[in-house]
Amino acid sequence: MAKTVKNKENEKITPKQIALKLKTMADGITKQIDSKIDPVFTTQQRGRSNVEFDEKRRVLTLGDKVTSRNFLNIGHAKKFMQTMMVTSKTHDYLTQNKTASIREVYYELKHTLGKSKENTFEDQTESDSCIVDLEHSVDTIREKLNLHANPKGTLYGDITIIDRKHNSDEFNASKLGRGGWSIMSRIEPEEIEIKKTNADYILVIETEAMYERLVEEGFAKKNKAILISTGGQAARGTRRLIHRIHTEKKLPVYMFTDGDPYGWYIYSVVKQGSMALAAHSDFLAVPDAKYIGMTLEDVEDFGLQNVTEKMKEGDIKRAKEMLDYPWFQNKEWQAELKKAIQLKIRIEQQALANKSLSFVADEYLPKKIKKKEFLP
Amino acid sequence: MAKTVKNKENEKITPKQIALKLKTMADGITKQIDSKIDPVFTTQQRGRSNVEFDEKRRVLTLGDKVTSRNFLNIGHAKKFMQTMMVTSKTHDYLTQNKTASIREVYYELKHTLGKSKENTFEDQTESDSCIVDLEHSVDTIREKLNLHANPKGTLYGDITIIDRKHNSDEFNASKLGRGGWSIMSRIEPEEIEIKKTNADYILVIETEAMYERLVEEGFAKKNKAILISTGGQAARGTRRLIHRIHTEKKLPVYMFTDGDPYGWYIYSVVKQGSMALAAHSDFLAVPDAKYIGMTLEDVEDFGLQNVTEKMKEGDIKRAKEMLDYPWFQNKEWQAELKKAIQLKIRIEQQALANKSLSFVADEYLPKKIKKKEFLP
Repeated sequence: MAKTVKNKENEKITPKQIALKLKTMADGITKQIDSKIDPVFTTQQRGRSNVEFDEKRRVLTLGDKVTSRNFLNIGHAKKFMQTMMVTSKTHDYLTQNKTASIREVYYELKHTLGKSKENTFEDQTESDSCIVDLEHSVDTIREKLNLHANPKGTLYGDITIIDRKHNSDEFNASKLGRGGWSIMSRIEPEEIEIKKTNADYILVIETEAMYERLVEEGFAKKNKAILISTGGQAARGTRRLIHRIHTEKKLPVYMFTDGDPYGWYIYSVVKQGSMALAAHSDFLAVPDAKYIGMTLEDVEDFGLQNVTEKMKEGDIKRAKEMLDYPWFQNKEWQAELKKAIQLKIRIEQQALANKSLSFVADEYLPKKIKKKEFLP
Repeated sequence: MAKTVKNKENEKITPKQIALKLKTMADGITKQIDSKIDPVFTTQQRGRSNVEFDEKRRVLTLGDKVTSRNFLNIGHAKKFMQTMMVTSKTHDYLTQNKTASIREVYYELKHTLGKSKENTFEDQTESDSCIVDLEHSVDTIREKLNLHANPKGTLYGDITIIDRKHNSDEFNASKLGRGGWSIMSRIEPEEIEIKKTNADYILVIETEAMYERLVEEGFAKKNKAILISTGGQAARGTRRLIHRIHTEKKLPVYMFTDGDPYGWYIYSVVKQGSMALAAHSDFLAVPDAKYIGMTLEDVEDFGLQNVTEKMKEGDIKRAKEMLDYPWFQNKEWQAELKKAIQLKIRIEQQALANKSLSFVADEYLPKKIKKKEFLP
């Protein structure tokens, strides 16, 4: 329970407070050096051995294990220096009100050390790993360190957004033509305000093409839905936006993906977070999200046998692994996964076009939502 | 010259006229059948042997070679049937004012033939190839057949767009926060109107992260620029939008990519079209586009030696092939390509962060544009 409270505080933390956290950490290290103590940097241990599924909150979380790095250990010294460089640069961004992509951080910090031929960073994996260490050390997400990954994803529907850092632009995402709003990499509350929505739910869609279909059919207006396309695996900015609309506007989230291991994985990540980001589930996860389809029952119900695809060996193996995932330990998902493994088939969203182009918008989705035919 | 005139007519062709073209073609085939003549479908021959670089217009074009397919040839019969199915379905879309993704076309048309176990289409490559045949047969682009590929790309800047098919939504792409407008897959004039722009030029950017950097720096407003990010290779909708803004608003196009074979290829395709789409250059290409960077001269001019990356063998091989491309037959590109091959290095856009985050927006781009330091 303590963890939940801590994370609620985290959501409201300001850039100034995060900068202070970084400075306090760095001051501690300076003091250690002044006192001739071997300086040590501490962060949360990641990886499978410290990841837990929190049954109560139904999200992945990190356990209590920590890991530390000593400057006076020859195996740690370079990484220690790199972590301090990233900490210092991030502190600059926060105090100067700048943001940067993680690739820019790498390039900004890369240089040759003194007269040696030694580089500060050899490639981006090195700076990325420091960023992850830092996020876990000060218990926040990179977006709150003013860093970001690449954006991806599109928003459409009756929802009014304000960008406080861009002339307080206010726009409604149902009035941008059929293209919609290109979701930014950073959706932090001090920058992006979700002002108002008249929608009843959020429909998250795996493929851009299905998103375009639903826009063309006027689905959002007829059904009072917000449409968000992820374009495959959801980017962090898109997950953050889904999380925030869900939390702030109390709207249910329905996920519409292909019926295959990749689609189920996209669902899993939006719903309860990913292994790699287990510490950040409170910022990103939506444990109440429901899965609307595609399912193998759809194949029978709508006579789609002719437009299924064969699962590849790798897909079948993934599906078998998923049988053991804690969040799929319920009879509905066990039945779904077993059926897929037995039949060795997958079904795409766009296969619904086999009925008719408008079938998905006029019948499939409205019927499922009305009857609450979801997988948990 | 005849070809140019024909293509100018093509640009203004209406859905009704295209539908009539399809019907005329199909009526011809029906008549052949009624007259007991072996029906034949004719289209332009594609592939390297029929692709030419038109020196005068500086775009790739298709030559005059045609290819035909006979129904009473056992090797052609199935493809003939498939082409007729796609033609008929496309005609439906045009007359019913519907559009579809090419994957939806595949799924819509896939079924078992009669009581046999034979499918109309086995996979999407078969229907895609019919779509390409049809585009070339009636001399248009798939967008004018109401078909489309997946969308990708973002628009930002002082440009006002109207979506005529979506409540005549009118919006300015500088007022959508920092996210910008998600570019649709279809940018045909009867649907999307480019109403007004106060910009002086279009800057096309390879990476989403650099696009976000320039937005954050307020580059578009300070420099009166429209920013378009392609997110890698430009999607058709994005190419069409660049082509249309350039042509209709008489704005120059500057391309800003990584300095490597992939970046140069992105530039090539936007500028003079691609091998696969040689017949459609008049709809998509921008032969006057200029290349602003990154270049290997930048590496020296700005002391970026420390943030170059080694080119892989495959990249070096690609660069060597590019030496022979007709559109790189000028001293500037020959020098650039030879330098890359000799030094075996590449330089990314984001490497400019090594100077400072705002360097690209405050110095690099404005200076290059002012001094017209472009590659042709």
